[in-house]
Amino acid sequence: MSLTHAPAGAVRQGSLRELNLALVLGRIAAADRPPSRADLATATGLTRATVSAVVEDLLAGRLVSESDPAPRSGAGRPARGLVLADQGPAGLGLEVNVDYLAVCVVDLAGQVRHRTVHRADLRPVAPADALARLVEMAGAARDDAAQHGLTLVGAALAVPGLVDDDGLVRLAPNLGWRDVPVPALLAEHPPLIEQVPGIPALTVDNEANLAALGELHSQPPGCSSSFLHISGEVGIGAGIVLDGALFRGVRGWSGEIGHLPVHPEGRPCRCGGQGCLEQYAGQEAIVSAAGLARAELPADTATARLAELAEAGDADALRALHDAGTALGVAVAGVVNLLDLDTVVLGGGYAALAPWLCPPVLAEIDARVLTAAWSPVTVRPSTLGAEAAAVGAAGSVARRIVAQPVGWLARSG
Amino acid sequence: MSLTHAPAGAVRQGSLRELNLALVLGRIAAADRPPSRADLATATGLTRATVSAVVEDLLAGRLVSESDPAPRSGAGRPARGLVLADQGPAGLGLEVNVDYLAVCVVDLAGQVRHRTVHRADLRPVAPADALARLVEMAGAARDDAAQHGLTLVGAALAVPGLVDDDGLVRLAPNLGWRDVPVPALLAEHPPLIEQVPGIPALTVDNEANLAALGELHSQPPGCSSSFLHISGEVGIGAGIVLDGALFRGVRGWSGEIGHLPVHPEGRPCRCGGQGCLEQYAGQEAIVSAAGLARAELPADTATARLAELAEAGDADALRALHDAGTALGVAVAGVVNLLDLDTVVLGGGYAALAPWLCPPVLAEIDARVLTAAWSPVTVRPSTLGAEAAAVGAAGSVARRIVAQPVGWLARSG
Repeated sequence: MSLTHAPAGAVRQGSLRELNLALVLGRIAAADRPPSRADLATATGLTRATVSAVVEDLLAGRLVSESDPAPRSGAGRPARGLVLADQGPAGLGLEVNVDYLAVCVVDLAGQVRHRTVHRADLRPVAPADALARLVEMAGAARDDAAQHGLTLVGAALAVPGLVDDDGLVRLAPNLGWRDVPVPALLAEHPPLIEQVPGIPALTVDNEANLAALGELHSQPPGCSSSFLHISGEVGIGAGIVLDGALFRGVRGWSGEIGHLPVHPEGRPCRCGGQGCLEQYAGQEAIVSAAGLARAELPADTATARLAELAEAGDADALRALHDAGTALGVAVAGVVNLLDLDTVVLGGGYAALAPWLCPPVLAEIDARVLTAAWSPVTVRPSTLGAEAAAVGAAGSVARRIVAQPVGWLARSG
Repeated sequence: MSLTHAPAGAVRQGSLRELNLALVLGRIAAADRPPSRADLATATGLTRATVSAVVEDLLAGRLVSESDPAPRSGAGRPARGLVLADQGPAGLGLEVNVDYLAVCVVDLAGQVRHRTVHRADLRPVAPADALARLVEMAGAARDDAAQHGLTLVGAALAVPGLVDDDGLVRLAPNLGWRDVPVPALLAEHPPLIEQVPGIPALTVDNEANLAALGELHSQPPGCSSSFLHISGEVGIGAGIVLDGALFRGVRGWSGEIGHLPVHPEGRPCRCGGQGCLEQYAGQEAIVSAAGLARAELPADTATARLAELAEAGDADALRALHDAGTALGVAVAGVVNLLDLDTVVLGGGYAALAPWLCPPVLAEIDARVLTAAWSPVTVRPSTLGAEAAAVGAAGSVARRIVAQPVGWLARSG
């Protein structure tokens, strides 16, 4: 997947048409119910004639479609509204994690249109081989998407590690990856993506960041737009969302909550440190504390098995989850004291374990957060669970197309 | 200090004159060397005639003055440049901390023009009495400033605790303050501030936040504009500066690094938690670990005495500082893993102890921060030390006057 066909003709940047296309499409994307052309003229300040011309372009390019007429109480013909198209360009989301590969396709409206998860322990697998398996899954996703009239125009890959701007994975300690040139390895495969101007064929990002973005765009209305999203897998990562935007840190490496020391003189960690949260609340730590031998319980089924045992009242599993929740709560209380966030989302494998993790996390917050007495912190499971990173990755591509529609139109025109 | 005289006549918001005044004054403030009127016309895009008229207003209002002619290599008369005035409006900075009161005056150019620190243990003192002492110091500062041609037009107060938007101090655990209505208490004193439209007479903020702002605007050129500034006093607070702006959190209560758990089952803390950083690296913890009885060593001289002993090679003091630095390093490593910052500034009382604290802090960062091997973190003492909060407070007022000069001109016109 060198991921690219040849790009289409260059686009004149900043043209009026380009701005009007983005303005009208953005309004359609943000609207609570399908707006009419008249609504769009009011909302954008453009003339009716300009809106009509822009909408014709968007319809012809399969970026929007006409909705069914809404029932209307007053007299006259009911107006048809405009919605983001369910055919046309779409985003491809990819994830390599320690114990699964995931692929998904998200359309412009943010709907997940294809999803495949392949559970396997990826630690013994060489990076090039893991990526080859992912490309194979992505090929099937591309074919499935095509059958629904969707064209993949960009991909985003989630990895559980630290990523440079150019897609080099500097370090993914739990996968055992170090300095893996992901874009170069993917370029050895045939293209899956139809490249359009302005949309990167491939971006690589930390999975906890992409999972937090997936959660932000999937959570029910009324939820806080500032939260800490914790991806609890074999490793533990966090995405910090502040006022609806991801906080990335000075070099893009923020969110390594798994390496917050919770017992500074405690167990040695794969990172070289000691007493890191991962050693007390990572998936393997919980499995081992529950007295389950790893040989009998491969990483890819561990979370489901733990939930099953806890559900059945198994004392060892309950104690292991309580202790993990307490360690997690110690770290989370520190983060809340530091960042003053009002919402913590338990994502990844933690989502399925939330019934047992939430109480001890809340107990530590109550005991340790200075402001908890008069300003409670919400702790809740994520809406997407373990698939949040791939969904967040594909959604980030789809949102980029909506923000910059002219590239796709130049290609299809 | 109800802090206000009656405000001057209302200002028409958003007028062209207002915008041009702020634009030209902002350029003068940001310039590397005093710009001429011609430089300002080029930089702002305004006509020479408009710039001249605006500069006349600024000169008449004592917001800027003409600099001495700069030596010039070419032919012709050397141009005189414009600088921020060293007379005219100024900001008042106030601080109540556990073991001192501080007052300072900062002029428009950011120069500290007056500074008083009064060392005393404030814990046994009622909030109203502590504030009364501060008002007395502020009165002397006002008189001193007036002798230098400076008029105080706004005050900012730093407190070591959590502050609401309206200035209510919700909780300052080490001072023992809870729900203290600071603005109402100060309003019982005669006014010290000449109020001008657009400049709040009084704001109240967390001392660690204001200290971080003080550091940001005092640090040498070339320093990082994203850093963690730690104020190490009896309590330990932090200000998080990201891209030159203070990060305040969802409700304005960020930065409580002193309550990061470093030994979760360790010593009980005044906050109700257990094993908080403050219990291992706060001033009293260091003093006690160094074997110094608190009765012989009041809080207000503790830092100086510790530095003296360490300088002399006292083994107990050196061990106490090493252990405190290690605890601090554990917390800092967690913060750097979480936020991906490249600079940590040791401020407050820590500044004077930095020679002994920096090595163990760096050792913990090296051992625990995932990215430390290829992207080192700078740990350095603050440039302002314990006076950073009062300087930051006064500077925040001065910067507000520069950003919004029309209020002062309306008052003086």
